[in-house]
Amino acid sequence: MQGPVTAPRVSVNDAVTRAFTLFGKRWSGLIMGVLLCGPAHFAELRRAIPAISERMLSDRLTELGAAGLVVRRVHKGPPLRVSYRLTEAGAALEPALRELHAWAERHLSEVEQCPPE
Amino acid sequence: MQGPVTAPRVSVNDAVTRAFTLFGKRWSGLIMGVLLCGPAHFAELRRAIPAISERMLSDRLTELGAAGLVVRRVHKGPPLRVSYRLTEAGAALEPALRELHAWAERHLSEVEQCPPE
Repeated sequence: MQGPVTAPRVSVNDAVTRAFTLFGKRWSGLIMGVLLCGPAHFAELRRAIPAISERMLSDRLTELGAAGLVVRRVHKGPPLRVSYRLTEAGAALEPALRELHAWAERHLSEVEQCPPE
Repeated sequence: MQGPVTAPRVSVNDAVTRAFTLFGKRWSGLIMGVLLCGPAHFAELRRAIPAISERMLSDRLTELGAAGLVVRRVHKGPPLRVSYRLTEAGAALEPALRELHAWAERHLSEVEQCPPE
């Protein structure tokens, strides 16, 4: 087994830090996962992620929009409905999510996770 | 552009949910990213992620350990030091992190992120 290094470690790359600043917030990654299946109405996103509150979903969608990954669209109706879809940058996350999924299927399946905060 | 679906959406796959329950907590992903470079002492992890508090780092390492991804090792010394390394399951996260890194380099580089919570 390799021992710990003694020299100071380099800090984590900026891009990875930016990614985890975004996805290190609860639900952001899951919302992206749902939207990778296609555009969805607000209510559909809530159904897909039952534990999320309306306020939290709204906040997360706003953040993902500010990061240029999600676009909000208002359908005047009636009834007035709001839908969300991924931008090109958002859709480009698919390979990373696919790898994460494969890893989780293999390595997290038997493990009891701590309850969410 | 594809319109929103009207049928109820399927909920997100269990494995992806488990992954984001783990990495949807602040710092967990970054800690894994640092440990992918090799084992590290607690103090080295703190230097690599300057904004993390000692308590938060300790909590996250405990969670990653409970999930079977990180192993803690005590070196009796003196001085007594504690180091952390990835398990095989933890190291297997590398392809997913590499994809995430490539995506972030390309798609998050020009975007101003919201400040962390």
